[in-house]
Amino acid sequence: MKEVKVFAPASAVNLSCGFDIFGCALKFPGDEVLVRRTDQAGVRIIKIEGDGGRLSYDTDENTAGIAASLLLNHLQSEQGIEIELYKKMPLGSGLGSSAASAVAALTAVNHLLGSPLPRRELLPFAMETEIFVSGWGHADNAAASLLGGFILVRSYEPLDVLQLSVPDDLYFAVVRAHAEINTKKAREILKPDVELKKAVVQWGNIAGMVTGLLNSDYDLISRSMNDVIVEPVRAPLIPHFYDVKSAALKNGGLGCSISGSGPSIFAMCKGEKNARSAGQAMGGIYDKAGLEHDVYLSQINKNGPEILNEVL
Amino acid sequence: MKEVKVFAPASAVNLSCGFDIFGCALKFPGDEVLVRRTDQAGVRIIKIEGDGGRLSYDTDENTAGIAASLLLNHLQSEQGIEIELYKKMPLGSGLGSSAASAVAALTAVNHLLGSPLPRRELLPFAMETEIFVSGWGHADNAAASLLGGFILVRSYEPLDVLQLSVPDDLYFAVVRAHAEINTKKAREILKPDVELKKAVVQWGNIAGMVTGLLNSDYDLISRSMNDVIVEPVRAPLIPHFYDVKSAALKNGGLGCSISGSGPSIFAMCKGEKNARSAGQAMGGIYDKAGLEHDVYLSQINKNGPEILNEVL
Repeated sequence: MKEVKVFAPASAVNLSCGFDIFGCALKFPGDEVLVRRTDQAGVRIIKIEGDGGRLSYDTDENTAGIAASLLLNHLQSEQGIEIELYKKMPLGSGLGSSAASAVAALTAVNHLLGSPLPRRELLPFAMETEIFVSGWGHADNAAASLLGGFILVRSYEPLDVLQLSVPDDLYFAVVRAHAEINTKKAREILKPDVELKKAVVQWGNIAGMVTGLLNSDYDLISRSMNDVIVEPVRAPLIPHFYDVKSAALKNGGLGCSISGSGPSIFAMCKGEKNARSAGQAMGGIYDKAGLEHDVYLSQINKNGPEILNEVL
Repeated sequence: MKEVKVFAPASAVNLSCGFDIFGCALKFPGDEVLVRRTDQAGVRIIKIEGDGGRLSYDTDENTAGIAASLLLNHLQSEQGIEIELYKKMPLGSGLGSSAASAVAALTAVNHLLGSPLPRRELLPFAMETEIFVSGWGHADNAAASLLGGFILVRSYEPLDVLQLSVPDDLYFAVVRAHAEINTKKAREILKPDVELKKAVVQWGNIAGMVTGLLNSDYDLISRSMNDVIVEPVRAPLIPHFYDVKSAALKNGGLGCSISGSGPSIFAMCKGEKNARSAGQAMGGIYDKAGLEHDVYLSQINKNGPEILNEVL
């Protein structure tokens, strides 16, 4: 194979109560990465589109490049690689933009080399890439983008990542204000300690959320989508957060919270109609405020990355 | 009906990672309460057996009496009631002794009066009774004893209690040293704050535990049975805790931790054979140490309280 182009999906994470443990792949947006064999050793990024000129062509400063290099090193491969990165989703949006690029690159390089690693084994490289972006190798975006579906990161040490079966009719409505949140900073404002009482509230909701998902109990999912720890701290960073949330909950959202460190706000909904109605209402708040934004409606992406085309 | 005698089961709670949210009813031990109509107004305790003389006959200082009075007041019933309390389980054991007495009394009084309340509506009275014992109205023992099965207290405000479906082959081995832990004190030594990092570890395990239970995935249950917050603080109160735990894990226990505030230590096991082997090994540690103890082996009690006999 000479070249291959791969799509890897965006992901909503935390999903209200599940800070650092829940993630879910979306059908769109997502990033596309093309990798091509070259005779010249090393990894080079030769083209980046859709980033407004903000991403680096330096392989060590771009998550697609970092991920590709990590994998080649691990495989002890001397294969020269060219990368073209097509950003089809916003940077710093809380939807796992960096993870999507890394996962697309990893999937593409692995495929190009004849799939020496099973998909799941690419995860540590995507996580290592996240260190570059946020200061630590969180797995939620990376695992959701790589594996697809609704992800539970049960444990980091040792790494234990599960896919939870979820109702087919679960949709996401996501609204993203055209603002950027620094992921590192959004972590730093979190308090290092939480009240035990609040932690107990949170773990009741987490247990309820998992039960609701596995039993397709939408009402229970809705009751459990309540984050008393992270959302209250990060909400002030997000434009009009509580107005958007209120609009989502009044218009078909089972629950609504910040995706990752924002600014994206997601609502989980039963069925496409509710997702459309919630998405419109959420976007409506930003319309009124004169704030540029995007609205995405998406079912859960159960498949993860997709090979778009290959040249043999 | 003139009188009725009810059995209400003991319960293991917290179940490692689920402090204040997980509880599970056992088939035994448990308490028996007989209630009888009398012409004399008010609630009187006329007999207590099995408590070694330690429980009060004062209706306001005995959980069976408190619970019965609360229910009668709620029902605005003037019916005079006599109570006989047969303690068939140890006090202060971490197995919900006070809750079992309260639940047996509530179930008996409600039954005696023609079941004016559905079973689930007795829970708030059992919780109110717990305030007397531990300083706050926790629901885990009370709900497990009253409803049977594996209980998730999803939320306290508003109260939202669920029964989780669990594998049929799940057994408990419980060892109780003949020592008593003051429940109030065991709460007070808990730190009011926990590290966010540890809280994340805990909620990953909680989500894993629920997933394991609902999917009958014993290996996942086992991996998830890890409490990094409460167990380390309370372990020093429990005689030879880590030796007992280690013995359980080496002899068929999926996981092992303190039930409630102890001293009871439980292991969850796949199948009776493993429970027997874990129970023997756990008891063996106390045998060696010359420490009096009891070992209970029990399947999950899915039914909750049981009417033992009634006199019409």
